[in-house]
Amino acid sequence: MQEKGILIVISGFSGAGKGTLVKKLLETYDKYALSISMTTRQPRAGEKDGIHYFFTSREKFEEEIAKNGLIEYAQYCGNYYGTPRAYVEEQLSRGQNVILEIEIQGALKIKKLFPESLLLFVTPPTAAELERRLKGRGTETEEVIAKRLARASEESEGIEAYDYIVVNDDLETCVEELHHIVEAAGRAPIRRQAFIKEIREELKGFVKGGQN
Amino acid sequence: MQEKGILIVISGFSGAGKGTLVKKLLETYDKYALSISMTTRQPRAGEKDGIHYFFTSREKFEEEIAKNGLIEYAQYCGNYYGTPRAYVEEQLSRGQNVILEIEIQGALKIKKLFPESLLLFVTPPTAAELERRLKGRGTETEEVIAKRLARASEESEGIEAYDYIVVNDDLETCVEELHHIVEAAGRAPIRRQAFIKEIREELKGFVKGGQN
Repeated sequence: MQEKGILIVISGFSGAGKGTLVKKLLETYDKYALSISMTTRQPRAGEKDGIHYFFTSREKFEEEIAKNGLIEYAQYCGNYYGTPRAYVEEQLSRGQNVILEIEIQGALKIKKLFPESLLLFVTPPTAAELERRLKGRGTETEEVIAKRLARASEESEGIEAYDYIVVNDDLETCVEELHHIVEAAGRAPIRRQAFIKEIREELKGFVKGGQN
Repeated sequence: MQEKGILIVISGFSGAGKGTLVKKLLETYDKYALSISMTTRQPRAGEKDGIHYFFTSREKFEEEIAKNGLIEYAQYCGNYYGTPRAYVEEQLSRGQNVILEIEIQGALKIKKLFPESLLLFVTPPTAAELERRLKGRGTETEEVIAKRLARASEESEGIEAYDYIVVNDDLETCVEELHHIVEAAGRAPIRRQAFIKEIREELKGFVKGGQN
């Protein structure tokens, strides 16, 4: 029997290295697929349709909402963002673990809808390291960095909602650890319901058989 | 900072191979210590004091209870069984993961007292395999095997109380998987409270610093 894949939500501080981590995970193991969000906002320079986002119109997006074509969606700054359902469900049923990179509000929505989903929070080993990485990019103003740190401080209040904390210190180690966390999570009873049901029924059969 | 070890409770069907699994785990990795129970029952042939159990008198056992020297204890068939506290706490504070091999009632008690403890349930891949192993021992009567299977059927009702199901198919694979599960469990927020607190305070410091 093909085991279903795990729906994995990855959140984390801006500057924690989520993007690099996910990219490396997809390159290293073949059991993962990345969900691509749909959005009504305009593509930024370098963003490609079907790679960074599925870009679409408000009309089409609202059609998707109406026909339950999105797992979750939200509006930010007047634009819609959502997770197309078809791709996620197809991959999961094929046994692929599907990754959604979303922030905490979306993560909590997903957990409510899919209790067997896996919520991972990516963080650097220390806040000082987070600041160092944000500054190291050299592309952001002091003000933007201060805002990101303030946001990180807020986000840190929500960590307990996540199933695991993934500390991104060394990339290679972190990717391996992330994979082991996903494998372990696949052994939690909530993700082994079919197995539990089967062994229970089988055991009951033995007991009945023995009584006859 | 020395991370505290994890208190690991291992339960599972009789015939699931818990003993062999734990032995192999202790041989393979140096981060584990096995807690030895204290009991008032008489040693059986081949059982050694301080290896299989700490054998003691009812009087001494009740002294231990009185001075809170046991993490948990229970009576079965007129004998006391309990987990000495000192060894467990010493090993945990040294960063060793401490293994208790106990059944579900004890496991639930431990989880209540130590919410950060880790409950693992060991099972063979199928009930048929469990029956095969019980029969394969060649030492048990049909009646005893039937009783064990009936007990397994009862025990299977409690699986959801455990954090993870460990399927013992191939021993080597299973030991490695068990170790990965323990490592992953160490990344759950409940076992990373010191880390969460530290990064939160550090981030708050940045925000305050930025506002000055």
